Amino acid sequence: MVRNENRLRVIPLGGLDGIGKNMTVLEYGDDMVVIDAGIMFPDDDHPGVDLILPDFSYIVKRQEKLRAIVITHGHEDHTGALPYLLKALGRQVPVLGTKLTLGLIRGKLEEHKLKKVKLQEVRDGGHVSLGPFGFDFFAVNHSIPDAVGMFIRTPVGNIVHTGDFKLDQTPIDGRLTDYAALTKFAKIGVDLLMSDSTNAETPGVTRSEASVGPALRDIIEHAEQRVIAASFSSHIHRVQQICDAAVGAGRKVVVAGRSMITNTKIARELGYLVIDDDDIIDAYEASGLAPERIVVMCTGSQGEPLSALARMANGDHKTVKVERGDTVIIAATPVPGNEKAVNRVINRLAKAGATVAHRGTVHVHVSGHAAAEELKLMLNLVQPKFFMPIHGETRHLAAHARLAEEVGIPTENIFMLDNGDCLEMSESGTGVIESVEHGVVYVDGLGVGDVGQVVLRDRQLLAQDGIVTIVVAIDGQTGRLVSEPELVTRGLAFGPEGDVITADAQALVATTLAKTFKEGATDQAVIKKALRDSLSQLLWERTRRRPMIIPVVVEV
Amino acid sequence: MVRNENRLRVIPLGGLDGIGKNMTVLEYGDDMVVIDAGIMFPDDDHPGVDLILPDFSYIVKRQEKLRAIVITHGHEDHTGALPYLLKALGRQVPVLGTKLTLGLIRGKLEEHKLKKVKLQEVRDGGHVSLGPFGFDFFAVNHSIPDAVGMFIRTPVGNIVHTGDFKLDQTPIDGRLTDYAALTKFAKIGVDLLMSDSTNAETPGVTRSEASVGPALRDIIEHAEQRVIAASFSSHIHRVQQICDAAVGAGRKVVVAGRSMITNTKIARELGYLVIDDDDIIDAYEASGLAPERIVVMCTGSQGEPLSALARMANGDHKTVKVERGDTVIIAATPVPGNEKAVNRVINRLAKAGATVAHRGTVHVHVSGHAAAEELKLMLNLVQPKFFMPIHGETRHLAAHARLAEEVGIPTENIFMLDNGDCLEMSESGTGVIESVEHGVVYVDGLGVGDVGQVVLRDRQLLAQDGIVTIVVAIDGQTGRLVSEPELVTRGLAFGPEGDVITADAQALVATTLAKTFKEGATDQAVIKKALRDSLSQLLWERTRRRPMIIPVVVEV
Repeated sequence: MVRNENRLRVIPLGGLDGIGKNMTVLEYGDDMVVIDAGIMFPDDDHPGVDLILPDFSYIVKRQEKLRAIVITHGHEDHTGALPYLLKALGRQVPVLGTKLTLGLIRGKLEEHKLKKVKLQEVRDGGHVSLGPFGFDFFAVNHSIPDAVGMFIRTPVGNIVHTGDFKLDQTPIDGRLTDYAALTKFAKIGVDLLMSDSTNAETPGVTRSEASVGPALRDIIEHAEQRVIAASFSSHIHRVQQICDAAVGAGRKVVVAGRSMITNTKIARELGYLVIDDDDIIDAYEASGLAPERIVVMCTGSQGEPLSALARMANGDHKTVKVERGDTVIIAATPVPGNEKAVNRVINRLAKAGATVAHRGTVHVHVSGHAAAEELKLMLNLVQPKFFMPIHGETRHLAAHARLAEEVGIPTENIFMLDNGDCLEMSESGTGVIESVEHGVVYVDGLGVGDVGQVVLRDRQLLAQDGIVTIVVAIDGQTGRLVSEPELVTRGLAFGPEGDVITADAQALVATTLAKTFKEGATDQAVIKKALRDSLSQLLWERTRRRPMIIPVVVEV
Repeated sequence: MVRNENRLRVIPLGGLDGIGKNMTVLEYGDDMVVIDAGIMFPDDDHPGVDLILPDFSYIVKRQEKLRAIVITHGHEDHTGALPYLLKALGRQVPVLGTKLTLGLIRGKLEEHKLKKVKLQEVRDGGHVSLGPFGFDFFAVNHSIPDAVGMFIRTPVGNIVHTGDFKLDQTPIDGRLTDYAALTKFAKIGVDLLMSDSTNAETPGVTRSEASVGPALRDIIEHAEQRVIAASFSSHIHRVQQICDAAVGAGRKVVVAGRSMITNTKIARELGYLVIDDDDIIDAYEASGLAPERIVVMCTGSQGEPLSALARMANGDHKTVKVERGDTVIIAATPVPGNEKAVNRVINRLAKAGATVAHRGTVHVHVSGHAAAEELKLMLNLVQPKFFMPIHGETRHLAAHARLAEEVGIPTENIFMLDNGDCLEMSESGTGVIESVEHGVVYVDGLGVGDVGQVVLRDRQLLAQDGIVTIVVAIDGQTGRLVSEPELVTRGLAFGPEGDVITADAQALVATTLAKTFKEGATDQAVIKKALRDSLSQLLWERTRRRPMIIPVVVEV
């Protein structure tokens, strides 16, 4: 590859190691555009962590080049890092997105007290020039309205970035994926396709959002008492279908849960959710209505402990109490990692006597991502020269790469990248070069980036085997103990042998100290290591556990 | 209910709050029989815990009554607590089961150095009298051979206990569920049916084990290189199908993973697994064979980090290395809680270039439990007066109860119990009376029952927010600090402000100590509380975290 010509760099900083923290950098000469700025939700491997951001140092260090941040749709895994990125930038950078996308972002920015951000609305079918980049936005279907993909013209080649998509032939809002635009781009010539891999392992076609309507209507019409329906609050089409079914059955929609209240309000204001004022009420207005006249539409489809549904299931929601004979619809599927939390809520609801309809029992959920046949169709519509599967774990990217091979993309033209890898395109060729600075940043309480792998590893060790703090006060001159060693344990149990083990440990500490002193050790590090080693061995022998051991030596 | 007549008590000590630790007590006068003695595998809510047992104190305290422990089949959630129960008992109690069930149990008992246990083989179609109880065993289908249910005659009524079952019309071993026996019991009269609820929420019928054969054969015949097939090692029918497909494709079966080696050996010796000696080899013998001549059959279908498959995926298995172009079949579904671990292994395999076939992509797994239509058929075959759904979480028991209502069991005759609840049957009536001693016992390292809820809660807190140990050495007489307070933290990070926060905390400790001393406090508990409170507030304000705070006061 010739080094001194003009080169385009395509750098996914996130989104290639799981569903989350999507963020891609396009860089050409002195210009840069970022596509999406998402977070990932932490799982059990990240105890205590609130959010996971992609490490965007690469962008911050080159911020004078940054023309804009372009957002494909309003989901948190594409927008959630925006407040953190904007705060990290030392200058104003416009954020581009469609109307609903910006509506949802505006709320997020206000929560973070970011008031002066320039939000620039784009439309599908519209065009925007950003330095050397020309962006054409096209409509795609997804589990949120107003999602777009992008055709990006650059001096060295054209890119199609699908965003998150499915091909819904009967979308709730009638807005089809723009097939004509895709074929037009193909005719112009697409050098690189970057396409959503989430469901690449799923054979066939993802069912239409409309297909869940009949089940929702059937349940709501035939329920004898209250119906409680939980879904993602940003899934406005699902919310619309629940509203329509409720109104059709002569019921009022009671909105519960903070994000459900916020998002239905935004969606109604912007015209994405249509329901009469008379038919949608706040939870505190519902007390006068008979149970069979109500559909409670709420958050909590992921089993979040503080969500409206979880509170209802636990009997501590302010206004809605689940009663024997109520029907609960969980119109969503658990995001990987949330299965247990959702399960817990379903069990509590069952205990309270509710019948719970979920995707395991009734057709109340479809995915928002294209399955294998749709992905192959996308490849055939766009006819790219090169292909980069994005938005997925390794397994999904690999499956998507196989689909691309099936439709005839040569294996050497398929680039399976890792986060931070850099695809370079130039007149003389396209290939992966050395990776840039990348990684993850943990948001933990007020701290952004304080918590690292060592801290997480410590938390996991603490959770596994607990901690033993051994405090010894020694005479700084003589090295002798001046009081009895104190053993403080948390997160472990010595059982009936406890007193004996403690006494033996104290004796061992005294012996170890005497020994190290005799050997002439005065360095605290040496003394601590000796204490840690001997105690660790004793506890392993007696309990078969390896708690973290923290020796504290106080010299007096 | 008349109190002075003869009464039967049916007490499930486990199995009603999840899939696991199945154990039911039957008690009549001076006689008692225990059905199953299973464990539950711990999840993320039980950090550091190795196994969960049902609390069987009720049995141990009445052990002089105990006639036998009857095991329905050889799965861990029905047999795993047996070594612990037998050790807790002060006397020999016979363990009854079918041939394969006892074969698998024998291995477990040897691991626990329990050598003198009396194992008594039973056969389906056979009868055993145990004091006042008459047991008739009948064949059922399940994801392990030789599973049985039981018809139990007692002086006050007859019980059918299904064990774990499905109704497989084309079982691999030709051994059908014994429909004739079930209708015969119905004719004799069944007062209580206790039936497996695992798949009560699943509509329709569970597919036959034979239905996965075609996909296994197709994958193994068409694979160009090595095939690695992971499944539960006790799922001998699945193992048989993998072996048959391998041999049919001219490949040798290489057995890898401790339990796969053990269980295939036992199953072959007892005649449950049929494959020529020539066709099945150990992993170390496979090195001479070409990849396209091999099917590696291994453990690790649940993503267990130390399993053969996980080691292969990580590239640190002794003899098998996954290579680009290899095919991996995961012929199992993740047990709830194991999804992430399985996902991790699949991603590593994809990274290594293997194609991974799993139930999401190909039909390589079916459940071993009956779905709704089968459960209703069981109810109609047995025609019980009373019904108790067992083996499931609340959601499954509730769904099973609804199925029973659908087939005409009166609601008041359906008993949804919690673990430890006691169903009492007598000539004058049947009903739930007060519950008995029950609960869970954690096995943690060498300790059985040492770890309790407090320790687990501590571990979770430690994992969430870490720990701060603050050590102060004070003059016992004056209460003054004799050295600088020492702050030791683990599992939390103060970020760039760290030094300032630490200094402020040390200053605060000094101030707090001075204040408590001035107020005349000399009690260590009072001093510690003051330190904990003030430090906790400081850290919350500065970091928005609430680490565990352990004050240690050394008086010198």
